[in-house]
Amino acid sequence: MVEALQSPEFIFNEATVRERWGLEPFLEGCAARGLSRASLWGEEVDKAGLEEARRMLSRTGISTFGFNRAGPLLAAGAAGRAECLDRARRAVDMAAELAADHVLVFSGGLAEGSRDLAGARAQTEDAIGALLDHARSVGMTLALEPLHPMVAGDRAVILSLSHANAICEQLGEGIGIVADAYHIWWDERLETELSRAGAAGRILGFHVSDWLVPTKHVLRDRGMMGDGIIDLAGMWRQVRAAGYDGPVEIEIFSDRWWAEDPDLVLDTALARCRSIFWGG
Amino acid sequence: MVEALQSPEFIFNEATVRERWGLEPFLEGCAARGLSRASLWGEEVDKAGLEEARRMLSRTGISTFGFNRAGPLLAAGAAGRAECLDRARRAVDMAAELAADHVLVFSGGLAEGSRDLAGARAQTEDAIGALLDHARSVGMTLALEPLHPMVAGDRAVILSLSHANAICEQLGEGIGIVADAYHIWWDERLETELSRAGAAGRILGFHVSDWLVPTKHVLRDRGMMGDGIIDLAGMWRQVRAAGYDGPVEIEIFSDRWWAEDPDLVLDTALARCRSIFWGG
Repeated sequence: MVEALQSPEFIFNEATVRERWGLEPFLEGCAARGLSRASLWGEEVDKAGLEEARRMLSRTGISTFGFNRAGPLLAAGAAGRAECLDRARRAVDMAAELAADHVLVFSGGLAEGSRDLAGARAQTEDAIGALLDHARSVGMTLALEPLHPMVAGDRAVILSLSHANAICEQLGEGIGIVADAYHIWWDERLETELSRAGAAGRILGFHVSDWLVPTKHVLRDRGMMGDGIIDLAGMWRQVRAAGYDGPVEIEIFSDRWWAEDPDLVLDTALARCRSIFWGG
Repeated sequence: MVEALQSPEFIFNEATVRERWGLEPFLEGCAARGLSRASLWGEEVDKAGLEEARRMLSRTGISTFGFNRAGPLLAAGAAGRAECLDRARRAVDMAAELAADHVLVFSGGLAEGSRDLAGARAQTEDAIGALLDHARSVGMTLALEPLHPMVAGDRAVILSLSHANAICEQLGEGIGIVADAYHIWWDERLETELSRAGAAGRILGFHVSDWLVPTKHVLRDRGMMGDGIIDLAGMWRQVRAAGYDGPVEIEIFSDRWWAEDPDLVLDTALARCRSIFWGG
């Protein structure tokens, strides 16, 4: 029992098996392994329909942890951005309908032809402020997840915990950060910024996969935990030391693992996580 | 004449045409275009032999700007690192023999099986300190070039201008930074850190290529200036505002451009640079 208490809660992000499983088999796969929470994607909820998705959650006894996602927020022109913001508000509403713990905010990349990263950052910060007003009104928490600098401009403009923390500090309550090991492990400010977020009670989630050498694709070549060079156990100690007591969320974007039997993926991931994080 | 004075000096890094040209055609290609400096690689100098390389430089009227490179500095075990340091000292000596402006320092990545990025950073900092003693003794300047976080652990542990600046500030005279647009363009601290380096007179070089979307390879898919999403003109303004008055160095690692006729590559790059940086 002592060991069991020391083990973190492990949960899956649906994207890990998205190529071969829809929402229902995913939730059943989680439930079959004794898990009680999962992180979902709006596209999959849309395919099932919101009411049916809620029934699946209820039937499997799974509750929603992270909801993906509100965004992109960036577009060319004020009208385009207003439309993005409307869609993001609806994503926040869906997260609330699913009783998610938090909704991930996705800035998206530069508008076609633009090279103005600083301008895009300012627009993103404005949009997050507006989205937060709405999120507060429906009782949903926004999560900023800095993405790896290799997707800068293409898919994201918030590329460090420092930037995400600064936005949170400016905006106040109802917004925090998700620390995804894959995106932030390289940062020499990592421990400082985790402490900064933790001190304010703002760490909402901790995502894991691994960094492979060589990395063959900038989006779809994340590794199974243990197959790469990230010190995941060390980062988990930092995240816990910063006060986080939530689950370890497994989120692997990988052509290699998407091609595998999803049951094998879940079992492999859980075995790896138990080995890496147990008692950590 | 006024326009000519406003144009930056453009120079080439030999790596840009390394697949099809050796040292001599490269230097001749630079000279034919009226350039008077170039950045070289030790491997190519070794192929020609140091004395012959010096004769080629003299004959073409090209002087050495950056010399690549001192490192890797990281290896498993103290003996391995001592050996690396010896080789790095010899690279510094070669840079001095070639009267280079500065020698690029290359940390290399984690030792096989290691996940200790913080430890590798500390070892790298120690090695740079030792290397700097030697560099001072032969009158050579060390250049820290932060590499993109997508090569973290694999090829580098100095991944931001902030970290490079902090090392320089700790070590004092004889060491500075090279700002390579490709590696640092995404950083929200960019302008601040360029100013910090510039205020101390520590910007030794400014390298350009471009960030392609999508990026198909983490090492060999840099873009021709203008083909990507980096605001090169804006970064050049920041670099100049920080006090840098050296050349714009064209350094493109690219399977696509390596396959082209090197004359075409040089002409294309110069035309693009004139369009982007002229009067900037």
